[in-house]
Amino acid sequence: MSIWASAFAPASVGNIGVGFDVLGHVIDGPRDIARVRRIDALEVRIDGIGGDVTGAERLPLAASDNTAGRALQSLRTALSLPFGFALTLEKGIPLGSGMGGSAASCVAALVAANALLAQPLSREALYPFALDGESVASGARHGDNVAPMLLGGVTLSTSQRAIALDVPSWLHAVVVHPDQVLETRRSRAVLAAPYALHDVVAHSTHLALFLTGLQRGDRELIRDGLHDVLVEPRRAPLIPGFDAVKTAALAHGALGASISGGGPSVFAWFDSLAAARAAAPIMRAGFLDVGIEARAHVSPVAAPRAELFERDGA
Amino acid sequence: MSIWASAFAPASVGNIGVGFDVLGHVIDGPRDIARVRRIDALEVRIDGIGGDVTGAERLPLAASDNTAGRALQSLRTALSLPFGFALTLEKGIPLGSGMGGSAASCVAALVAANALLAQPLSREALYPFALDGESVASGARHGDNVAPMLLGGVTLSTSQRAIALDVPSWLHAVVVHPDQVLETRRSRAVLAAPYALHDVVAHSTHLALFLTGLQRGDRELIRDGLHDVLVEPRRAPLIPGFDAVKTAALAHGALGASISGGGPSVFAWFDSLAAARAAAPIMRAGFLDVGIEARAHVSPVAAPRAELFERDGA
Repeated sequence: MSIWASAFAPASVGNIGVGFDVLGHVIDGPRDIARVRRIDALEVRIDGIGGDVTGAERLPLAASDNTAGRALQSLRTALSLPFGFALTLEKGIPLGSGMGGSAASCVAALVAANALLAQPLSREALYPFALDGESVASGARHGDNVAPMLLGGVTLSTSQRAIALDVPSWLHAVVVHPDQVLETRRSRAVLAAPYALHDVVAHSTHLALFLTGLQRGDRELIRDGLHDVLVEPRRAPLIPGFDAVKTAALAHGALGASISGGGPSVFAWFDSLAAARAAAPIMRAGFLDVGIEARAHVSPVAAPRAELFERDGA
Repeated sequence: MSIWASAFAPASVGNIGVGFDVLGHVIDGPRDIARVRRIDALEVRIDGIGGDVTGAERLPLAASDNTAGRALQSLRTALSLPFGFALTLEKGIPLGSGMGGSAASCVAALVAANALLAQPLSREALYPFALDGESVASGARHGDNVAPMLLGGVTLSTSQRAIALDVPSWLHAVVVHPDQVLETRRSRAVLAAPYALHDVVAHSTHLALFLTGLQRGDRELIRDGLHDVLVEPRRAPLIPGFDAVKTAALAHGALGASISGGGPSVFAWFDSLAAARAAAPIMRAGFLDVGIEARAHVSPVAAPRAELFERDGA
């Protein structure tokens, strides 16, 4: 049995516009890394948080205040483990970017810790612990980021389970991250007022078209479905440059575009890698034009899940 | 080319609980029949409305006030037909039952009239005319009843198109129709107040589980998805006996149960014909127990679409 292991978890696009709090997908781009070591003390301890993202040093080191720490505490308790974990995190996903950074630390830590168990759990079985961890950051058990990180590609997540959906291999995403932070709580606050029946029906219709399109690999159904009439109209005003970035994406062949997670990152889906690559710099320019530095990431939508990448030789 | 033709359209379960205004399915049970004749006059005329359902004689004979008449007017105009139609309807679906009676007359008339065209249209191409007809009854272009009647089984419908979904052959429905009328307009009025985010997210989650379950033929996903938290809580109080009927269904193996269309009919889904047959009398008793006469219909969910069944020998 190994004494230590390290794992990465990829960034993600929570919501995918049309699937608020329900759908998400990972991207092959920025990632968080967790290194976990078994210790004799019956506790979870965070030994350090590093990485070259702004603000990493301000993240809480108290395990129960940290998504990764809380997830490992939850795992320890549920399995009545006779040992503890010491954890270090290397943040690669920018904080407050809407690319699932808090979820990635949590999932990377779980995947690493799982490799230290006498009987490792399935990815599905890790899901409840990931939800426990994620709740530290978001105040609720949202699976739209942790689920795709655990399973890869696009997932449907509930408070009970995570399901990997079929994803056509030609689908590609561009995610543009502006150098700005949008606090999750602020991004949530604008959603509180209730929703008109007309919008709820439109939302259901889009979601149904989108899921049917994904399942059939039908780009026109995906295109018809990839509209967020519910959340985007309320959140977009919080993101300077959003309209320009989305317009650029749609003008350059995107099947649809919306806000990644709680923002301010913006994503768009394309029906080929070439189309995504061509659109990425033009989307990025939408932020640059309003004076905001930005980075663009291009990835298949069916991107890989979190994986163990190193462990001691035991 | 035929001079006259007749067609039937089956009853339907609009909404299927979790798919308000978006999903619907037909049942093999009550049906409406339309007989359509080509006439020289450039008009649509309704020569009579019969059938043994209560109130059939009070349905409007003015073509533009009748779903079937309006649909044929719309067809005539769109195709600039050099002839008109005379139409008789035989109602078999009880009025105001929530089983899609107004939609069925409209679809039966279109399928019959289509057989009289020099170049008959596809079912998908008839869909916009069916929406035009249906709007006479509901005040809006809702496809959740006409779409499954045109295509069969379960459909996803938007204002633009109708899509037949994959349906496992083992799925069966029970639809219980109480001898009561619930006016569509009254049934709609309770839905006007807006919806909390929490309920909208639950609704999306259920819809996504349901569609994924249908596509995969996974009864547990269908069971998890077949809950209506949006509309049912508001409409159920308008239907005496609803709670008893739903409870009976769930206690006897239903995957889920809710209101058919705008009500007052109640439907439930089962994972076998035997289970549906066993539950049907017990569901019916839920209405009888509160002094309301009722009929139960058992049908595969993948039930047949509307069909031509007679025409002159041309």
